[in-house]
Amino acid sequence: MHSNTVKAVDWVDGQLVLLDQRILPKSETYITCHDITSVIDSIKKMVVRGAPAIGIVAAYGVVISARARHDNNMNTAQLEVYKNDVLADLNLLAEARPTAVNLKWAVDRMKQSFVNAYKNDAIIEALLTEAKDIHAEDIANNHRMGDLASDLMASTSNGPFSVMTHCNAGSLATGGYGTALGAIRAGWKNNLIDCVYADETRPWLQGARLTAWELAQEGIPVCLNADGAAGWLLANKNIKWIIVGADRVTANGDVANKIGTYSLAVLAKYHGVKMMVVAPSSTVDMALKTGDEIEIEMRTTQELTQIGDLQIAPAGVNAINPVFDVTPAALIDAIVTERGVIENPSTKKMLVVFG
Amino acid sequence: MHSNTVKAVDWVDGQLVLLDQRILPKSETYITCHDITSVIDSIKKMVVRGAPAIGIVAAYGVVISARARHDNNMNTAQLEVYKNDVLADLNLLAEARPTAVNLKWAVDRMKQSFVNAYKNDAIIEALLTEAKDIHAEDIANNHRMGDLASDLMASTSNGPFSVMTHCNAGSLATGGYGTALGAIRAGWKNNLIDCVYADETRPWLQGARLTAWELAQEGIPVCLNADGAAGWLLANKNIKWIIVGADRVTANGDVANKIGTYSLAVLAKYHGVKMMVVAPSSTVDMALKTGDEIEIEMRTTQELTQIGDLQIAPAGVNAINPVFDVTPAALIDAIVTERGVIENPSTKKMLVVFG
Repeated sequence: MHSNTVKAVDWVDGQLVLLDQRILPKSETYITCHDITSVIDSIKKMVVRGAPAIGIVAAYGVVISARARHDNNMNTAQLEVYKNDVLADLNLLAEARPTAVNLKWAVDRMKQSFVNAYKNDAIIEALLTEAKDIHAEDIANNHRMGDLASDLMASTSNGPFSVMTHCNAGSLATGGYGTALGAIRAGWKNNLIDCVYADETRPWLQGARLTAWELAQEGIPVCLNADGAAGWLLANKNIKWIIVGADRVTANGDVANKIGTYSLAVLAKYHGVKMMVVAPSSTVDMALKTGDEIEIEMRTTQELTQIGDLQIAPAGVNAINPVFDVTPAALIDAIVTERGVIENPSTKKMLVVFG
Repeated sequence: MHSNTVKAVDWVDGQLVLLDQRILPKSETYITCHDITSVIDSIKKMVVRGAPAIGIVAAYGVVISARARHDNNMNTAQLEVYKNDVLADLNLLAEARPTAVNLKWAVDRMKQSFVNAYKNDAIIEALLTEAKDIHAEDIANNHRMGDLASDLMASTSNGPFSVMTHCNAGSLATGGYGTALGAIRAGWKNNLIDCVYADETRPWLQGARLTAWELAQEGIPVCLNADGAAGWLLANKNIKWIIVGADRVTANGDVANKIGTYSLAVLAKYHGVKMMVVAPSSTVDMALKTGDEIEIEMRTTQELTQIGDLQIAPAGVNAINPVFDVTPAALIDAIVTERGVIENPSTKKMLVVFG
């Protein structure tokens, strides 16, 4: 399945090519990852970000590791060394960032393929096919979720209405088309949505740098706002839905997503605005009972005290930079996955779909 | 009354000297306003900001206008020209920014003094005395409010607990000591407060640039956070009070303050955290029945798309930049003015104090 939207991740002539999202929208620069170390670094340093996109990059990373360490005609002992070396790479890869489960999900799926077939001569081709499948499935899932989300929105209002989104859960965060922005693309195409309010999403400014850029490229009406203006906008504009992606959904329907999502969910409830989470089933982690068990990544305070080279807070000031938060299921009106829509999520409803 | 805290506004050797808050904390640079145009510009361009500080600057601005246009030995006709020219300056001055009422309040008070005595030889000295009174009263009021706020906090918990503040309502926003930060200074001195979470306060970053700087200079423990992290912090840290200043308080106790305050008030209510507004009586506008009547200043979208010279969003992107919002009285636990504490504010309670 093909997507015409911008590509954050691509496999070109046997190479993994990433759009460097750290410097968007100033410059559209691509980085080629030649080894597993550069793949891991690209995830840690946020060349690529967004839970599904990280998963896809990790899948291709497994191909890169398995290919680099591969020799023809390995004997049994050499094959075991090969296996262990690749598995060690995969462990490092899976730990590159802690909160989004898609990374672990993709590495586990690729690991299974590798362990099943590492003795075969065609192991690299098999792994590449699997990675490309993960990538293609992600895009297909996004289109499916977009349709489901648009139908859900249409069932509550004929529109046009406005929506708000947070961070970037678009083409740039996925294999293509996007989760939250896929829903928004579908809703816009179906004339339900007249304006997308994009929270700028400090500290990394994904809303300003990525979402505004991505939507503007397609002519979808976007209006950038400070994160602090969300309450005022919900009280004063015709916003019917807040639509976000997710980094991990637990068995009870709690959702980890970009810091600020939880505040938005509280504001949505207060204003009678509906809250929709759009994420593929690879984001669902039924092994965790509730969001309390999710590890929240804390990143460097430099993300708060500097923007680029510009010092915006006193040097050495104390700061705290949790980059995700957990929104309890009770504040979420609908979780949309490619398997369907779960309204008012609960453990029972999650089990029906993901048990 | 003297304050040892940093001075945003000072009258030195017959000149109005302003700390340029646009470039803090990078550089501590002072600007001298030589004429009324530069005073108005300094308010519009936010060399000085914060409702009470703007009022004080405006008071000194009236002195500057009246002095520049003054001649000795004016005849009756010349005196009337003089009066009208100064009043024209005062009209422009009062309109420099729309939301904070302290500006209009200070100009009106100075205008009264001017109109009463513009024919007197000692008019300039009289106006300067009045402006210095406004300045000194503001500092005294802040100390009084700090004590009241500290007593209020002590009545709910022995501490130590943490508090959160938004924007900068400190020495830099007032004549000295601060409103919200005056309350925090007093609470810290009284061992009630162990940590001040400072929202960075996009778009102008008053929290990062000014509050973090101001508190760190005095060794008050401050922790900077992204605005979007407020919900997570309220859910996960021992925060008992959100303490903010105000730009206008209406007759029913609604409060206009920096954009993001309203979102915080909703979050506070959801988390059972108390919400305190600290503002002198010069911020109270009994002529407006409710916050619906307050004009919300919309500033340039460049404040969102650029930080300094750095372009952070696509050039030409649509954006919305309301710089204040209105928090309804129902979300406010206490309004602290120098006249006392109003808990659970209402029109009836406001009338008792300000009727």
